[in-house]
Amino acid sequence: MLLHHCTWPEVEAYLTRSRGIIIPIGSTEQHGPTGAIGTDAICAEAIARGVGEATDALVTPTISVGMALHHLAFAGSMSLRPETLMAVVQDWVTSLARHGFERFFFINGHGGNMATLKAAFAQTYQAIADLGTVPGGDRVRCRLANWYMTRGAYQLAKELYGDAEGSHATPSEIAVTLFVHPPLKREVPLEPAIAPSGRAIYGAAAFRQAYPDGRMGSNPSLATADHGQQFYGAAVRELSESYRAFLAEP
Amino acid sequence: MLLHHCTWPEVEAYLTRSRGIIIPIGSTEQHGPTGAIGTDAICAEAIARGVGEATDALVTPTISVGMALHHLAFAGSMSLRPETLMAVVQDWVTSLARHGFERFFFINGHGGNMATLKAAFAQTYQAIADLGTVPGGDRVRCRLANWYMTRGAYQLAKELYGDAEGSHATPSEIAVTLFVHPPLKREVPLEPAIAPSGRAIYGAAAFRQAYPDGRMGSNPSLATADHGQQFYGAAVRELSESYRAFLAEP
Amino acid sequence: MLLHHCTWPEVEAYLTRSRGIIIPIGSTEQHGPTGAIGTDAICAEAIARGVGEATDALVTPTISVGMALHHLAFAGSMSLRPETLMAVVQDWVTSLARHGFERFFFINGHGGNMATLKAAFAQTYQAIADLGTVPGGDRVRCRLANWYMTRGAYQLAKELYGDAEGSHATPSEIAVTLFVHPPLKREVPLEPAIAPSGRAIYGAAAFRQAYPDGRMGSNPSLATADHGQQFYGAAVRELSESYRAFLAEP
Amino acid sequence: MLLHHCTWPEVEAYLTRSRGIIIPIGSTEQHGPTGAIGTDAICAEAIARGVGEATDALVTPTISVGMALHHLAFAGSMSLRPETLMAVVQDWVTSLARHGFERFFFINGHGGNMATLKAAFAQTYQAIADLGTVPGGDRVRCRLANWYMTRGAYQLAKELYGDAEGSHATPSEIAVTLFVHPPLKREVPLEPAIAPSGRAIYGAAAFRQAYPDGRMGSNPSLATADHGQQFYGAAVRELSESYRAFLAEP
Amino acid sequence: MLLHHCTWPEVEAYLTRSRGIIIPIGSTEQHGPTGAIGTDAICAEAIARGVGEATDALVTPTISVGMALHHLAFAGSMSLRPETLMAVVQDWVTSLARHGFERFFFINGHGGNMATLKAAFAQTYQAIADLGTVPGGDRVRCRLANWYMTRGAYQLAKELYGDAEGSHATPSEIAVTLFVHPPLKREVPLEPAIAPSGRAIYGAAAFRQAYPDGRMGSNPSLATADHGQQFYGAAVRELSESYRAFLAEP
Amino acid sequence: MLLHHCTWPEVEAYLTRSRGIIIPIGSTEQHGPTGAIGTDAICAEAIARGVGEATDALVTPTISVGMALHHLAFAGSMSLRPETLMAVVQDWVTSLARHGFERFFFINGHGGNMATLKAAFAQTYQAIADLGTVPGGDRVRCRLANWYMTRGAYQLAKELYGDAEGSHATPSEIAVTLFVHPPLKREVPLEPAIAPSGRAIYGAAAFRQAYPDGRMGSNPSLATADHGQQFYGAAVRELSESYRAFLAEP
Repeated sequence: MLLHHCTWPEVEAYLTRSRGIIIPIGSTEQHGPTGAIGTDAICAEAIARGVGEATDALVTPTISVGMALHHLAFAGSMSLRPETLMAVVQDWVTSLARHGFERFFFINGHGGNMATLKAAFAQTYQAIADLGTVPGGDRVRCRLANWYMTRGAYQLAKELYGDAEGSHATPSEIAVTLFVHPPLKREVPLEPAIAPSGRAIYGAAAFRQAYPDGRMGSNPSLATADHGQQFYGAAVRELSESYRAFLAEP
Repeated sequence: MLLHHCTWPEVEAYLTRSRGIIIPIGSTEQHGPTGAIGTDAICAEAIARGVGEATDALVTPTISVGMALHHLAFAGSMSLRPETLMAVVQDWVTSLARHGFERFFFINGHGGNMATLKAAFAQTYQAIADLGTVPGGDRVRCRLANWYMTRGAYQLAKELYGDAEGSHATPSEIAVTLFVHPPLKREVPLEPAIAPSGRAIYGAAAFRQAYPDGRMGSNPSLATADHGQQFYGAAVRELSESYRAFLAEP
Repeated sequence: MLLHHCTWPEVEAYLTRSRGIIIPIGSTEQHGPTGAIGTDAICAEAIARGVGEATDALVTPTISVGMALHHLAFAGSMSLRPETLMAVVQDWVTSLARHGFERFFFINGHGGNMATLKAAFAQTYQAIADLGTVPGGDRVRCRLANWYMTRGAYQLAKELYGDAEGSHATPSEIAVTLFVHPPLKREVPLEPAIAPSGRAIYGAAAFRQAYPDGRMGSNPSLATADHGQQFYGAAVRELSESYRAFLAEP
Repeated sequence: MLLHHCTWPEVEAYLTRSRGIIIPIGSTEQHGPTGAIGTDAICAEAIARGVGEATDALVTPTISVGMALHHLAFAGSMSLRPETLMAVVQDWVTSLARHGFERFFFINGHGGNMATLKAAFAQTYQAIADLGTVPGGDRVRCRLANWYMTRGAYQLAKELYGDAEGSHATPSEIAVTLFVHPPLKREVPLEPAIAPSGRAIYGAAAFRQAYPDGRMGSNPSLATADHGQQFYGAAVRELSESYRAFLAEP
Repeated sequence: MLLHHCTWPEVEAYLTRSRGIIIPIGSTEQHGPTGAIGTDAICAEAIARGVGEATDALVTPTISVGMALHHLAFAGSMSLRPETLMAVVQDWVTSLARHGFERFFFINGHGGNMATLKAAFAQTYQAIADLGTVPGGDRVRCRLANWYMTRGAYQLAKELYGDAEGSHATPSEIAVTLFVHPPLKREVPLEPAIAPSGRAIYGAAAFRQAYPDGRMGSNPSLATADHGQQFYGAAVRELSESYRAFLAEP
Repeated sequence: MLLHHCTWPEVEAYLTRSRGIIIPIGSTEQHGPTGAIGTDAICAEAIARGVGEATDALVTPTISVGMALHHLAFAGSMSLRPETLMAVVQDWVTSLARHGFERFFFINGHGGNMATLKAAFAQTYQAIADLGTVPGGDRVRCRLANWYMTRGAYQLAKELYGDAEGSHATPSEIAVTLFVHPPLKREVPLEPAIAPSGRAIYGAAAFRQAYPDGRMGSNPSLATADHGQQFYGAAVRELSESYRAFLAEP
């Protein structure tokens, strides 16, 4: 059930039975020579919608541009500054908290978003509690759920790809995009097959120097749409459980 | 051609033949008892992609939550504060300008975004020009293109709906959403058929008082998917021309 | 009646009979080779004071520097960044709302202020409503009244100048400055008599390239103090009506 | 010479002979039961223009609303938050520095502005130096000149009023307003004749509690327009010297 | 070697042989009924200075108040908002980068700082790279080193305390404070001996509800100064290695 | 009594007998060829702790990096931007006000902090009063106490050093650092013995040009630890009185 496909009276009705909502967040950044720039948003959105269906929960539109400043040396990459992303998260949560939403489940597709999201949650709790015009503002809770860190997805990646999974432009995330949208398949020679790894992430110039084609330790050519379906299924199952547990917290 | 469906080398190749890009922006806000909360984003995204296809231009993901503070008294409505939306626009444009994009064509589906977008453009021009690290930063140009203000869409609405078009939750925009996604059709009695109009827009509480079911002067029950297709076609044609003219500006 | 010429007990007394106040806003920016840099503020201030006298309303000091980033390539032009102007508007309105003012009538002399002002109004409504320490904060209403867009001024400009009115450094606004302060008259040859027009406004460098002497489509040498008096009279009459209607809104 | 009464070519010409400019800054805040709310701006503007004439210097419009949060418990008082005033000062100075102005002489009429102005100067120096697009940005210098702290004004106040000068709504500043605009004279009984003094300034509620009618230690009924002329003359003389010395600094 | 104990020529000399610097960051927040409010800063500062001595590196003053909004329901706790802490980190790093420092090693004592620090690093890289006035700005690298997550400290805690280590007001961190400053020892009965655990962290009110005396899963009464010395030694050894490796990164 | 050495129940107990707290603030900036970069923080911290002991008051950690943008042309100097320092002060005071603290006594060691601190106080009063979630928020009072401006310290400096006291890297402040930490003594020839003076302070580049070795009008080689003890004693005595008077204010 998509928030943006509902009318406002439908949302009002939903609130009489649930205070929870799911927010997909991705990124729009280079994913190596073969991966779609929108990979992280595509994965997060698909999985979030799957979780929404499985749990009868509302799903908002996707925050499609996240924190990816370190990817800006590759054409097409986009990023919010961390302070901007924090303001966006605060505004989204505050808007919905005004209506009575209390539990915000962020399904995230991008490791680079994690720190800023957690910082934003902390700032948002205090800001809403201080508003005074949002009754129950101090009951707001946000949860960060990274699909790629679910046990199921993690183990599947290990089995299917071993060391070639890497940590950026991974075959697992590319596989999900191929499952969601098969035409995203690109046949481009990758050299070396498994990208270098092990260098820490700093600014955009340093990133490109360390990772010349954008991949980090991965061989995304191993990805298939069929794998993607398996990742999708595992992530949806596990995050649906997490979401239910989140709602059930005292 | 969607930016998020491209790889970074594909974007690099695109930049050798064009410096233009299309950015859809909508809103996530109540659209009366029958309209989808995502109406403005749905329309802007569909039309922007149509223009992208017609003009062989890249289209970014959609800014789905805009400036809709005055709708926040209706469940499900979301809004960025104007200062947040300005930061978002600045970050999107700055990111892309770093790669060499120079002409940003915003296809907008929400009247409430217009002022903030124009303010953001002005701020962004100066900010990028001052960066110094963005060569050609002072060549950045943004254009605001509101699909609902195209001559074609305007005249069509007049013909089809006359006074029942109104100014919010209009049959024309609802029609486009039905064309894009037919299940959005809702059969809910509207009372009165044509909503009240004529009161100015201030804050959220005042808006709800003036417009109790969220509509402004409109009768969205007149909308059909077929009308939607006509609006879509008219807007795509006209905005494609505008985009080409924008690129051709000296 | 000027706010700054009153004592605080006089303002307290005023508030027992009216909740409205008038705020003039202009700009400090180039107005071509013959126009005063302060043209927009001079016009807005004079007309606002005229409306104040006609309606027995308080008038605040003038916001003399507005949003004019696109004029900064001409010596003497000054501008706030949009985010600064938004903060200024929010602070002015919030200050006055603390005392019980509820209806803020901005008489504006500069097209470039419009977008930022509207964005600021939206942000201010929400911010004051959220304060909690401002009783009646959700009753605050701001109105943007552009003197140059009144019907009377518009028609008069058409009659007197036709196509030579243009859109920046217009004879109509220069005329008002001559009426207010005759020594502002400058005799400088304008070449061409009617400035070029039709190019969109982007950043400061692009503006100067498109409009080399600063004028946009205008021939300000047609302006006379006598014309100015007519513009002043027409604008004061019409805006006085608008202000009364604004106060009378339910 | 007023900046806002010049054309841009006139400012360009001025810059060939001087890099200095004078910026008047006041406040719009209660000045006791008899003083005009605009007292500080009226004084600063008049004296700044006097200095401008005496030294053949450009004078900008007046920053009429300053930092007066502590006066907000009295009707009609207005204030920028310190962070807003800092942004305003930064934007004014940056705008003018782009044209080549280097020495900014702020003539100030309000003690409450001093701290924020000094903080703003420091922030502005660094910000402009970092711009890179402002050649000579690291040559920008701002000077705070408080007319009421000139030796001449200080001694005159001592002679004329002794202990009744006080520190807010002082007879000296009221006298200047009467000289500038005689109708500002108010005959209202003051009780006690000399207001209480000695309590420190904190927030708005505490201020009103300590100073119930707004005056601090003063008896403004002693002020006359003739005194005002003397204060004006003394301040203009002394600040003209200071301005010349400021320009002459190596 | 403490930066604040050096003169500026000594720092200049240091920069000829190293571009690295160590920044301790803690927090000032409740640490249960027996732990010092400054525990995190005390630990981070002591260990950072130990690392500085071991590696002949400069150590800055300590950022003593961090991100601890969730502890604010306990008396004495202090916190920066995440956006403030980000600005602080940006200003510290930018200041030092102007002198030529390039590698910033943050020794952190508080889990709640981690997200905001990482977000701040990302923002800082871009901001400094964009300055243009900081040569080599794009070479800036920050590293987050949490002493309590070093292998040595982690294993030692497991051995000494097993499950009673918990995750806030842990015996390991309390032990370090006792080693650094023995009078911090408090004998207060803890009830239950091992505090509850397992509830996620949201805002301040929810935190206090979940963790009534402030401890999370820990029994800090097990801590001794002798243990503290062992933790200190292990952390200093391991972080000294990490720092050297950080400097040696290509 | 140091806040960071207390447990939260101890702070809770303290609040039943006092609403006051002492906050030391210094700076981390060059102090000439012989002075420690941390001079201002070292002095402020030592004196604040002395006052805390003398008055049985809580003392917070030290704000060790202040507003010193004008010193950034000397290696090792650090500064917050004024807007950052304002946010820090607001966050510190707001955190503590949530617990019931009402009187904040800032013991300051750096002239460059004064303006920003005063601006921050004003902003903080209003911000806390507006929170609504801080009962008694409008009772918050901050006091700026500069140890170097106490009568005792001032007279002592005059007696001991006469004109060689100067205004930056003064023998008096260096003396206090030698008393606090004797190894800070440096024997470096100063040329000239008494540094130049009389130039106003602007940005960092101008400062270094005016004051090539960082000192302003001072001869810090006159400082001794014994002098330092006298300064310390005088400042602690006088500020203890001031703090008591501050608490006793009605």
